[in-house]
Amino acid sequence: MTAPRRSSLAQRCVAEAVATAFLLAAVVGSGIMGERLAGGSVGLALLANTLATGAALVALILAFGPLSGAHLNPAVSLAAAVEGEISRREAALYISAQMGGAVIGVAIADLMFEVPVFALSRNVRSGWSQILSEFVATFGLIAVIWGSARLRASSAVAIAVGAYITAAYWFTSSTSFANPAVAVARALTDTFAGIRPVDVPGFVVAQLLGAAAATVLFRWLAPAEPLGNA
Amino acid sequence: MTAPRRSSLAQRCVAEAVATAFLLAAVVGSGIMGERLAGGSVGLALLANTLATGAALVALILAFGPLSGAHLNPAVSLAAAVEGEISRREAALYISAQMGGAVIGVAIADLMFEVPVFALSRNVRSGWSQILSEFVATFGLIAVIWGSARLRASSAVAIAVGAYITAAYWFTSSTSFANPAVAVARALTDTFAGIRPVDVPGFVVAQLLGAAAATVLFRWLAPAEPLGNA
Amino acid sequence: MTAPRRSSLAQRCVAEAVATAFLLAAVVGSGIMGERLAGGSVGLALLANTLATGAALVALILAFGPLSGAHLNPAVSLAAAVEGEISRREAALYISAQMGGAVIGVAIADLMFEVPVFALSRNVRSGWSQILSEFVATFGLIAVIWGSARLRASSAVAIAVGAYITAAYWFTSSTSFANPAVAVARALTDTFAGIRPVDVPGFVVAQLLGAAAATVLFRWLAPAEPLGNA
Amino acid sequence: MTAPRRSSLAQRCVAEAVATAFLLAAVVGSGIMGERLAGGSVGLALLANTLATGAALVALILAFGPLSGAHLNPAVSLAAAVEGEISRREAALYISAQMGGAVIGVAIADLMFEVPVFALSRNVRSGWSQILSEFVATFGLIAVIWGSARLRASSAVAIAVGAYITAAYWFTSSTSFANPAVAVARALTDTFAGIRPVDVPGFVVAQLLGAAAATVLFRWLAPAEPLGNA
Repeated sequence: MTAPRRSSLAQRCVAEAVATAFLLAAVVGSGIMGERLAGGSVGLALLANTLATGAALVALILAFGPLSGAHLNPAVSLAAAVEGEISRREAALYISAQMGGAVIGVAIADLMFEVPVFALSRNVRSGWSQILSEFVATFGLIAVIWGSARLRASSAVAIAVGAYITAAYWFTSSTSFANPAVAVARALTDTFAGIRPVDVPGFVVAQLLGAAAATVLFRWLAPAEPLGNA
Repeated sequence: MTAPRRSSLAQRCVAEAVATAFLLAAVVGSGIMGERLAGGSVGLALLANTLATGAALVALILAFGPLSGAHLNPAVSLAAAVEGEISRREAALYISAQMGGAVIGVAIADLMFEVPVFALSRNVRSGWSQILSEFVATFGLIAVIWGSARLRASSAVAIAVGAYITAAYWFTSSTSFANPAVAVARALTDTFAGIRPVDVPGFVVAQLLGAAAATVLFRWLAPAEPLGNA
Repeated sequence: MTAPRRSSLAQRCVAEAVATAFLLAAVVGSGIMGERLAGGSVGLALLANTLATGAALVALILAFGPLSGAHLNPAVSLAAAVEGEISRREAALYISAQMGGAVIGVAIADLMFEVPVFALSRNVRSGWSQILSEFVATFGLIAVIWGSARLRASSAVAIAVGAYITAAYWFTSSTSFANPAVAVARALTDTFAGIRPVDVPGFVVAQLLGAAAATVLFRWLAPAEPLGNA
Repeated sequence: MTAPRRSSLAQRCVAEAVATAFLLAAVVGSGIMGERLAGGSVGLALLANTLATGAALVALILAFGPLSGAHLNPAVSLAAAVEGEISRREAALYISAQMGGAVIGVAIADLMFEVPVFALSRNVRSGWSQILSEFVATFGLIAVIWGSARLRASSAVAIAVGAYITAAYWFTSSTSFANPAVAVARALTDTFAGIRPVDVPGFVVAQLLGAAAATVLFRWLAPAEPLGNA
């Protein structure tokens, strides 16, 4: 989770922006491709969407983790700031980079598939069960990150996060956004992966609460002083 | 398999409960989602269920393994106690935590998909071939755990177990529960992943016999003193 | 590829037999399950069969590799003997164990799905293009094994072999048996993964020629003295 | 990315040729098999094609990476020459080996499935959105390679590249060739994975521009002097 010392803050923010752009391009682009090729089977479309998202996370965290920590997620950067791993200013800059990268990534995906750029989504994702899903999904994501990042070699985080999101796409009714930058940016595409803007705030609040709960739990379970690698 | 020394028993039991809850949420939730989106194709539903379960195991064992050993399975904790890796009291507490976590995880999954909580399953899973399947599935699981845990770096266990269950979902006629906590908890949801309560005892007995057989085999093949890493 | 010294030859042969039995149970069992659930889609059935086989290889090589080398394949044991990594006698015993384990594994799979045990397959797998496929498939398998085993940490072999067979199921017209024990044993089940006995000899000859060609190539590319880990 | 010193240039070029041949055999062969078994579902065919390609990359880079660097891609070899990791002459020979291997691999795939060898493809892959897709796809591929190769253990590159291409097959409208040797060779098969010869030049130019952009970015983000492993 911590960034290596020799990268400057500017380098780290660019890394976060580029990697988050690719994450969103992967989520949105594979949603469009999946829906186009699935011949009406939402299950097949979501399978493709899941495969692409999980695999993209593995690749991006392996490639960008040593540069910036590869948070790719404001909830992760906030949690890292709360735990004292990065400063508040660093967190603010990371989050700005993630949000900017996410929006650009969505636009690139839409361009690659020749669908309207920055069209607001009409995908309804509402109801208390989806809000609960986002709480659970983000709780699990942050728990997996704290567990694997504090207790394993850093490349394990890439596998753990990619595997976790692969699972969470299917075990939550919201398909597990688990990331405020992802939730906001996916409002800006009227395609398979989109979310109606009005449904975003509930998702983000649930995500932040889930992240906070997992951070509190792991402060007790595995304090930031490493327990030793296993 | 052994837990690191610096975690207290309370921390380890909470880790087992939380991780087992997520395992069951993944199994049950992805079963519901898979069935809903598969448009009648049981094959596609089981594919999604498999992907989510295997990936969840990888993520959970990577994240929780260094804390508690990430047994997530009473058969594993019993075998660890028999082999002297944990005490009988620890095993009893681990199993209680796993059972409690498993039941909570099923309830959370049902809530996330707005299906009745704690409805008893009507999924018939009976017949000697399914009982044999559970024996074979658990024999293989425990063999894979003993082999990889005693002879590899600990992160290999996460990959090995996730990969094994991914395979076993398809090569057994029972879809490989291989875990008494999973069998009991899945009786409490009337969805794709459920099992009729009356079918649970046969599954559990077969699982314990399979675990015992694998443990006896590996006591001879790879005694708990490490043979050296490879 | 080499077996660790502290395991006795008896332990190593039992490890080969047990692991090869599980490999065949995975191949044959997932073929039956895949066909049953695929609703007529051979593509979906083969996808499930592929997923189970590749994942089983990862798990089995991680678990049994440090014990016996996890050859699971007479072509591999023959190549290891030719390269002087094991003696001729060890190779003969390994191959016997693999053949016995493979046949038992097929029977267990058939029992788990209540289909007739040791029924001869009627699946036609003939023609020069399938023979060529088996040559190519086994050439690639042995190349991947020699490359990863001589030049990487041993756990990389498990990932490399599982990934290779996952790919080869789809890029050869024979679905890549690439293993004489697998070819012989799959003649003994009249299910999705079966092969007509009359088609087996051609497969085995092509496999042995492919293995020989790859071994010759790697004797020049990467001699058994390690080039250094990377 | 750098090749180990003890392999001769001849060994390294043969390794590149053999591995690139297998990569193309995997791409083209799994495309044919996928289409044949998918029963008309392009989504299922591409899923099989994706799985085989991503898995083949993992296996091939694990096996051949320590021998030659496992570039398998002229864009990678050019970038490595620009960065001074290999000489211009080495790059020229690598690229020749990759092109030759790629063409042979396509022919082998067509032979394995008894379709006409070296038939020109009639698959239309044109339009600015596909050109943009190839720029984005190759930018991401080279970024992932530079990031993981400079900052991780070398086996991480295999996982990162396999995962990246798995994702990129679905998040670009061109299905992410991202490799000039692949683009040229796939013009020589009139099957699922083919590309009309007239569409190849645009793909190649976009690929080279994407590779150049990523190389410039990473020259700043992660200079070739290692930042330290993480």
